[in-house]
Amino acid sequence: MGQTAVLAVDVGGTKIAAGLVGGDGVVSRHTETPTPATELQLSEALRALLASVVEGVAPSAVGVASAGPLDMDRGTVSPVNIPAWRDFPLVDLVSGIVPGVPVTLVGDGIAAAVGEHWRGVGRGAASMLGIVVSTGIGGGLVLNGAPYPGPSGNAGHIGHTVVDPAGPLCSCGATGCVEAYASGPSMVRWAQRHGWTGADTRVLAADAGRGNAIALAAFDQGTQALARGIIATATVCDLDRVVIGGGVSAAGDVLFAPLRRHLRRLATLNFVQRITVHPSMLGRQAGLLGAARSALRASQNLATGEDPTRDGDHVAVQAAGQ
Amino acid sequence: MGQTAVLAVDVGGTKIAAGLVGGDGVVSRHTETPTPATELQLSEALRALLASVVEGVAPSAVGVASAGPLDMDRGTVSPVNIPAWRDFPLVDLVSGIVPGVPVTLVGDGIAAAVGEHWRGVGRGAASMLGIVVSTGIGGGLVLNGAPYPGPSGNAGHIGHTVVDPAGPLCSCGATGCVEAYASGPSMVRWAQRHGWTGADTRVLAADAGRGNAIALAAFDQGTQALARGIIATATVCDLDRVVIGGGVSAAGDVLFAPLRRHLRRLATLNFVQRITVHPSMLGRQAGLLGAARSALRASQNLATGEDPTRDGDHVAVQAAGQ
Repeated sequence: MGQTAVLAVDVGGTKIAAGLVGGDGVVSRHTETPTPATELQLSEALRALLASVVEGVAPSAVGVASAGPLDMDRGTVSPVNIPAWRDFPLVDLVSGIVPGVPVTLVGDGIAAAVGEHWRGVGRGAASMLGIVVSTGIGGGLVLNGAPYPGPSGNAGHIGHTVVDPAGPLCSCGATGCVEAYASGPSMVRWAQRHGWTGADTRVLAADAGRGNAIALAAFDQGTQALARGIIATATVCDLDRVVIGGGVSAAGDVLFAPLRRHLRRLATLNFVQRITVHPSMLGRQAGLLGAARSALRASQNLATGEDPTRDGDHVAVQAAGQ
Repeated sequence: MGQTAVLAVDVGGTKIAAGLVGGDGVVSRHTETPTPATELQLSEALRALLASVVEGVAPSAVGVASAGPLDMDRGTVSPVNIPAWRDFPLVDLVSGIVPGVPVTLVGDGIAAAVGEHWRGVGRGAASMLGIVVSTGIGGGLVLNGAPYPGPSGNAGHIGHTVVDPAGPLCSCGATGCVEAYASGPSMVRWAQRHGWTGADTRVLAADAGRGNAIALAAFDQGTQALARGIIATATVCDLDRVVIGGGVSAAGDVLFAPLRRHLRRLATLNFVQRITVHPSMLGRQAGLLGAARSALRASQNLATGEDPTRDGDHVAVQAAGQ
């Protein structure tokens, strides 16, 4: 291990995870902790977590996946669901903990997509959309076999494609976004408005699995919107595969059966009809593996004298300990 | 000229164009002819056109842009608007006319985008969508500065993104596609249903320019749908620039003023609000230049021993005269 492993970090609103990842994608010392609420606690928790993971080893590089928005040029993050961090210098913090190696920053949506493409159910896909269905809906694209974060690092925002202008108001200000129908809280709200009395997505999925009509209808309207978003993305991006992870994807057939039915019903163009939809294989490790993969690519490019961002990884690489 | 120029060909439903294009993008011997109706006439017209353009010169490569669908593996085309050609071996035909040089096939939507990105108003854009608004609505993507045709060659199909499921029926079988609102014939039909008595898009644009209320409303509903399609594409592809060509774009401000107004009104995410929209600079030469650019890249890659398709050009390259 030692020199060849990279340190992978995944910072989300619910948990912080880290681990050592070899060039073969094997994860060791996988550790996670709930995300603390204050800036000081958060920095301390991250410091303690990383120190425990790298104890006695010298990772060759660090990959950090973070909820966004990210500022790639400055290496700072302002995650919507981590209010304690606004323009927080995450790359600097990590560089301080693991000095002397390049640190690569990547968005959590694209990290999950890259992870699935590298070691999960996305392997071999030419053009893949990874979707994370959870409290919100995020996504990331792998195009021509390489990560595609886009010039601003925001590509793959399928949660905010509008599928029906007459639809419900979304937190982004638009109406009818995929997220306003298909996120966990959106489906729960829809069900509650229609008389369902449960509290959260997990119960909604269980009730749908038991045949509760309102719960089934909630997943039906949510997956119809998700199918429309996938079809719109495939129509412009010419996708061949879609991988869906995140908490809500744990609902399994309750989510995937109506989603596939809507896709079959709504896709009209041949090249869109060819897409296949798969549940995430890596689950919560997808982001960690995607962060590791991005770090491996960046340090490989650095070692051969290439631009570390040449593969379209929108990364901020900086030598630590300056 | 001689060795360094490539022969560029642009085959569309209305006209066939060809010319010699230097490495600097300068076009010479630009010639075009109306697209004949029968397979035999079409092949003969293409043969005569190409023979006249290459007379006395030896182009180093040939780039062919064609209306789709295309079969990239077999080098055949079945353009929706050229019924005479179904699974027509266009690459073989061109190879027979200009033997001994590689022939690169590319879709007309991506060719127009690549042309504008190379020598037009798309220069320097990191991620660009080119749109052709005409009898139908086509498009093509340039991502990370390189053509992105997608695995099946169909990326950029913005005309068939659904912007309102309650919208009008589209020729593709879906309802509410951008094309069903914003193509020339769609806007003309909308105006006629609302009492306008003109015959075609040119008259509709002229009437809108003179302040005719129905004509203005027709462009308003069309450009609103186009704005929604652009926003959906920018939301997943993280675009920085959009270039619009095609016959309808000749309407100028009648099209672009309401389009920009709808974009400002409907874009909610920062990274989507940054996109700028520009009329095509190259007009009818965009496709020809895109075909030339693709041929130049492919033959450059061949010369250096690289995979000729490495830049994401989805091209069929075959040595001619076999």
